[in-house]
Amino acid sequence: MEMTCQQIAELVGGELVGDGAVTITGLEELALADASQLTFIGDVPHARRWPHCEAGASLINRGLEVEADGRPLIRVDDVDLAMAALLDHVTAPDPRVSVGVDPTASVDPSAKLGAGVAIGPGCVVGPNVTIGDDTQLHPRVTLYDGCVIGAGCVLWPNVVVRERCEVGDGGILHSGVVVGTDGFGYRPSPDGQGIVKIPHVGNVVLGRGVEVGANTTIDRGKFSSTTVGDGSKIDNLVVIAHNVRIGRCVLIAGKTGIAGSTTIGDGAMIGGGCDIRDHLDIGPGVKLAGGSQVMNDIPAGQTWAGSPAQEFTKARREYVAVRQLPDVMKKVRKQLRDMG
Amino acid sequence: MEMTCQQIAELVGGELVGDGAVTITGLEELALADASQLTFIGDVPHARRWPHCEAGASLINRGLEVEADGRPLIRVDDVDLAMAALLDHVTAPDPRVSVGVDPTASVDPSAKLGAGVAIGPGCVVGPNVTIGDDTQLHPRVTLYDGCVIGAGCVLWPNVVVRERCEVGDGGILHSGVVVGTDGFGYRPSPDGQGIVKIPHVGNVVLGRGVEVGANTTIDRGKFSSTTVGDGSKIDNLVVIAHNVRIGRCVLIAGKTGIAGSTTIGDGAMIGGGCDIRDHLDIGPGVKLAGGSQVMNDIPAGQTWAGSPAQEFTKARREYVAVRQLPDVMKKVRKQLRDMG
Amino acid sequence: MEMTCQQIAELVGGELVGDGAVTITGLEELALADASQLTFIGDVPHARRWPHCEAGASLINRGLEVEADGRPLIRVDDVDLAMAALLDHVTAPDPRVSVGVDPTASVDPSAKLGAGVAIGPGCVVGPNVTIGDDTQLHPRVTLYDGCVIGAGCVLWPNVVVRERCEVGDGGILHSGVVVGTDGFGYRPSPDGQGIVKIPHVGNVVLGRGVEVGANTTIDRGKFSSTTVGDGSKIDNLVVIAHNVRIGRCVLIAGKTGIAGSTTIGDGAMIGGGCDIRDHLDIGPGVKLAGGSQVMNDIPAGQTWAGSPAQEFTKARREYVAVRQLPDVMKKVRKQLRDMG
Repeated sequence: MEMTCQQIAELVGGELVGDGAVTITGLEELALADASQLTFIGDVPHARRWPHCEAGASLINRGLEVEADGRPLIRVDDVDLAMAALLDHVTAPDPRVSVGVDPTASVDPSAKLGAGVAIGPGCVVGPNVTIGDDTQLHPRVTLYDGCVIGAGCVLWPNVVVRERCEVGDGGILHSGVVVGTDGFGYRPSPDGQGIVKIPHVGNVVLGRGVEVGANTTIDRGKFSSTTVGDGSKIDNLVVIAHNVRIGRCVLIAGKTGIAGSTTIGDGAMIGGGCDIRDHLDIGPGVKLAGGSQVMNDIPAGQTWAGSPAQEFTKARREYVAVRQLPDVMKKVRKQLRDMG
Repeated sequence: MEMTCQQIAELVGGELVGDGAVTITGLEELALADASQLTFIGDVPHARRWPHCEAGASLINRGLEVEADGRPLIRVDDVDLAMAALLDHVTAPDPRVSVGVDPTASVDPSAKLGAGVAIGPGCVVGPNVTIGDDTQLHPRVTLYDGCVIGAGCVLWPNVVVRERCEVGDGGILHSGVVVGTDGFGYRPSPDGQGIVKIPHVGNVVLGRGVEVGANTTIDRGKFSSTTVGDGSKIDNLVVIAHNVRIGRCVLIAGKTGIAGSTTIGDGAMIGGGCDIRDHLDIGPGVKLAGGSQVMNDIPAGQTWAGSPAQEFTKARREYVAVRQLPDVMKKVRKQLRDMG
Repeated sequence: MEMTCQQIAELVGGELVGDGAVTITGLEELALADASQLTFIGDVPHARRWPHCEAGASLINRGLEVEADGRPLIRVDDVDLAMAALLDHVTAPDPRVSVGVDPTASVDPSAKLGAGVAIGPGCVVGPNVTIGDDTQLHPRVTLYDGCVIGAGCVLWPNVVVRERCEVGDGGILHSGVVVGTDGFGYRPSPDGQGIVKIPHVGNVVLGRGVEVGANTTIDRGKFSSTTVGDGSKIDNLVVIAHNVRIGRCVLIAGKTGIAGSTTIGDGAMIGGGCDIRDHLDIGPGVKLAGGSQVMNDIPAGQTWAGSPAQEFTKARREYVAVRQLPDVMKKVRKQLRDMG
């Protein structure tokens, strides 16, 4: 990246205050930016720290005041959107796989490949797989029998999609993702001497624009499908069990686990490190704090937290009470003693 | 799947009530089943919901009453066993690797391969590895020097088994499993300036019929072996540290972590998302609720829950008390104030 | 391993008491050792159990007393260091990849390979990658455009290092590690109808001697770098989000998650299964108990525990109070009733 402040102001549609010739070679948050970098000021605390930071220039929300010191400022309506526009502008495109089938890949003759499909080294594409136009398989992706991968998808190295699973258009599966592995289901053997595996005959269906983080696993359904709705985004090392149903535009942060047959409504936002029990109904628009352990259904739109999780204001009240408990208990004990 | 209710009744040894000619094309749980699908009624709540569901027919436990409405019912002793028998009958076999060694695989000449062994594309089999009859290596499995893999095993893509580890007959290792990686052990360097890696010279020994879920890791022992007993089943993204000893027929659900040198007794059932400290003794038959954090030994047969985990009835009593704490504390504070 | 006690005493610089001709074929902890194995006695409890164990001989710290029974003892200043020296001596070297480029690997002509570099089967090395002397790429490692891998590194199977990331000299990345995958960042789409991916233009920089456990993921920075300092060690299945900054010689045990932009100071020790929130400052030398959920900054040198985490003595006091709560509450309720 190398842009003048003038060029940046034009790109983001902002109002330049100061020297438009100052050259910027990178973007950085305020605390870390150096004189060659542009930062952003979106609230009063950042505005206060502006004089003490070393950034060469800053985007700043209209309406915020900072101490003028000669460094260029670019006033915009929303620094987050302006930064996003800049990032889009300066971002190098992701590494791509060459269009066509790498000679070290193994593609079954019955597979149907769309136009512009790129199949990297060591990939294995099974019988009756369908791959949509312009989809990229990075090295060593494995697609089992009858998978349907949409158009414009990117599957990073070592992704495994098991038989009959579906990935919608524009899907992104990061390195090491496993879609459609067997659900964790067993029953006692008839002789009572062991455990017998229950077959999982269902599949996994990911909607359009679903992104799945590195090394995350999504189990296939027992009878029907484990599903993830259009536009939902799942972070790294998440465990999604058999027959979970995730709605549209759901965000699930890293290291969360969702047990079998639980439903997550549209637009829910699930923090990292949560454990959600099986057969629950988590309503649309629910927000769940990181590290929550969910043992109950959650009504639409509520924010929950804690372990076991409960509605946020109750969780906070309980948290405050527990923190005070040792001191209160000491007083109560004294009182109980005094009263005989 | 396409079977008449008559055929299904015969297969499961059940008593048909209604029209045996009704055709079924799938299995589904009651809430989701449509008119072409067979469901199952195993308890009173399901029996009550039967009139409101759309399933075409149902298996039902003898002794349960439902409102008859003309849809076929098949009475059996145990719907779970009947469904399992049906699933076994209708399940397509898992995708298989062709018997023999794929030309893109690399197999050391000193490796001993049993009859019917199938080694898929890109596999790497090291020196002195032994593989039992009919074992399947899916694409890109890596077996390091001196591994012993039993007969009838299935190793899914990208499984790594490090040197000298053993997998018993009938083992299933799902995609991305890593068996025998180094334990996490370090000591201060002699000069006090850093950390030195402790070698782990042991291995991992998995018994017969052990199943390990996708992207789970099992560390090798420091001196001797990390072991998993016959018939035990481990879910996805589980972390098993060095020198852990897991008994027979243990179930461990997803995202659980077991720290170094801890022992889990036969038949234990460990919920998902648990953290179990190092050097503990978890007795045979212990049941552990999901999300438990275990800091103490657990006697045989007990059920524990919570964080830190304790015996289940105590955990529940504590949980109820904590939920009431904010209100009780308010009353107590008033009382303390009133009493000066 | 096959050594006499005399040879062992010489190797560790210890004082032999008893028959130096006794042959030892392995090392084992006291409770598990058999007559052919050497164990170690580093404290009074182990010393007490010596008469009841079956080990053939033992290392023992000078100053500890045990019941003499004819089995050889080797007195040393520090059994842990002596065991480490022995382990170093008896450990077979790790499996190595042959020096050179395997014919099934794909290396871009612009990549710069140091002397003695070993690139295993199925590896993919992208444009402008630099690899230092004697570095080993085990099967199917993928290095994307512009990566810089130091000298003497070992990358185990299926490791993925995304574009422009750096791994310092002597780094060890275990199987399935993903370095530099996209951070989990989205913003509402301008039309309010969905979620838009935020590009992550930064990278990951791992210092010298960093070890990363199997299937762990480290996200690339949004603007600048996600960093891990020299000598830090990260266990299996850890999630490190974008722009996390980890200091030198930090230990992070398995299944821990660290959210975006959090800083971990030099020498910190993070237990397993912890969740650490975003944008926190965890000071140098902090110790964090396993399973902690960290919602606040932690000052240098403190030990914290619990959920939400707090200073250890407070956490313990709270824990004790909560355990007593049901009984105390019962008494308080009675008292409140008695007082009307």
